[in-house]
Amino acid sequence: MTHQLIILGAGPAGLSAAIYAKRYGLKYIIIGKLPGGAVHEGHKVDNYLGFKSIKGPELAKEFVAHVPDKIIEEQAESICRQGELFEVKTEKNTYQGQILILALGMKSKKLGFKNEEKFLGQGIAYYTPTNLVELKGKTLAVVGGGDSALCAALKVADLAKKVYLIHRRDEFRGAPALVDQVKAEAKIELILSAWPEEAKGKDKLASVVLNTGQELKVDAMFLEVGGVPNVYLCGQLGIAMDNNFIKVDKNQATNVPGIYAAGDMTDNPLKQIVTAAAEGAIAATSAYGCLKNLG
Amino acid sequence: MTHQLIILGAGPAGLSAAIYAKRYGLKYIIIGKLPGGAVHEGHKVDNYLGFKSIKGPELAKEFVAHVPDKIIEEQAESICRQGELFEVKTEKNTYQGQILILALGMKSKKLGFKNEEKFLGQGIAYYTPTNLVELKGKTLAVVGGGDSALCAALKVADLAKKVYLIHRRDEFRGAPALVDQVKAEAKIELILSAWPEEAKGKDKLASVVLNTGQELKVDAMFLEVGGVPNVYLCGQLGIAMDNNFIKVDKNQATNVPGIYAAGDMTDNPLKQIVTAAAEGAIAATSAYGCLKNLG
Repeated sequence: MTHQLIILGAGPAGLSAAIYAKRYGLKYIIIGKLPGGAVHEGHKVDNYLGFKSIKGPELAKEFVAHVPDKIIEEQAESICRQGELFEVKTEKNTYQGQILILALGMKSKKLGFKNEEKFLGQGIAYYTPTNLVELKGKTLAVVGGGDSALCAALKVADLAKKVYLIHRRDEFRGAPALVDQVKAEAKIELILSAWPEEAKGKDKLASVVLNTGQELKVDAMFLEVGGVPNVYLCGQLGIAMDNNFIKVDKNQATNVPGIYAAGDMTDNPLKQIVTAAAEGAIAATSAYGCLKNLG
Repeated sequence: MTHQLIILGAGPAGLSAAIYAKRYGLKYIIIGKLPGGAVHEGHKVDNYLGFKSIKGPELAKEFVAHVPDKIIEEQAESICRQGELFEVKTEKNTYQGQILILALGMKSKKLGFKNEEKFLGQGIAYYTPTNLVELKGKTLAVVGGGDSALCAALKVADLAKKVYLIHRRDEFRGAPALVDQVKAEAKIELILSAWPEEAKGKDKLASVVLNTGQELKVDAMFLEVGGVPNVYLCGQLGIAMDNNFIKVDKNQATNVPGIYAAGDMTDNPLKQIVTAAAEGAIAATSAYGCLKNLG
């Protein structure tokens, strides 16, 4: 059986796409191993308009409950073209569809130091929280040397007491203007040619031990070493990328007719739950327009 | 007192911008006469991810409750430059800010026929619902002659029993390809050189009487005559427009440094609650980046 639309991924982007696809009356399926996606990882979510403060897994549950159809909980293993159609193979089945929405999210790069996983969400995060106010007066570490690490250090320095910026090289690869700003900020202490070897603490992170032997007492550590969009399935489709992120236009269209992308996989500037949900809605609308030739 | 950021409008775009501005620790204010904005008009909202089905005014309440600061419930009456700052005057006060986020929404064009207001939300809407499935088997009218009216007629024709497309001229100004599709769709009956003069019904719309005297029994009527973005305050700011909508890039930046826009006022393709909320989050992030020179 051929579907009009296959949505790959069941995080906020994929789920929102499914809600809209259903409303447009499309014959669609949604495939995702973990319905709710990365929302599960949110310790406390308080920036998705309408939910003042909610635990990640609970918000994921609300999102999944909103989708009217069964989510196919399988892992996509390959995507390719079959004539006019796209073919998705999972560990169990093969699906064919006229249109694809890719919403497979992103994987954080692990650094591999001791207790990295243990304190995840308990002082260690793979992103800098947008709630800077909660960091007021704290001592923090940011790990990384690119633009996002530099920006993160500057952002958190605003309200924090002190910020260690830890980078494994002796110079930054980020934009020179940002490097200058970081150097000018008195609250930021640069620790170069260094990396974390161990995180210490009881229930939550209390300090980090570097390869140099130095131990830094910190309240939180943000690993801004870049995420990896889950584009490993897209290799054969000829999709244009920018630094591993899928290039999309305002309609969430990729360069390949019939393929749309939404959420953390795309090159859109902000990666948040609300932006992923919006991109899913737009992608489904575009998919509908494409199927109906509404131009 | 000068604010870092002034958010104009308290619909989903403005409210989401406020939530993010607060998290970034910005000194901001939000000004809006009706907190919750157009969400109040939604009879039933079931497409905002996380809320399966909720009345518009209730969702508006959840949104407003999420914003940590007091919303200034005043009507902006003018916006202009004062040196390096922007100055906003309301009926009561004058505010100055370094950055502006415009999120003033859109006004539906009224047609002015009898009982137009009476049946609003009870069979008459100024937009075509995205939930096409609910229209299954129904008899509908779409009013208008542009692309959006043509698309709306094609969309709703999918599942409806019959669709009257009512247009006041004898030809359509929409794209020729769409006009051809509309003409080829057997379920659509064109009624040209005609317009509604009266809506009839008891509690909800039951029929519409045209200027020609013809009376059409319909379950719902969608007035796709175009909305007007509330850009009347923006005249002196030199903002680039596209057909009265504010042109924005992926960061919600306008062509004027320091001015961002979000929600229904912008030229973004989809006008939904979730897209407005996402655009507000992006605009606040961009405003923060601009204030901090994060490039």
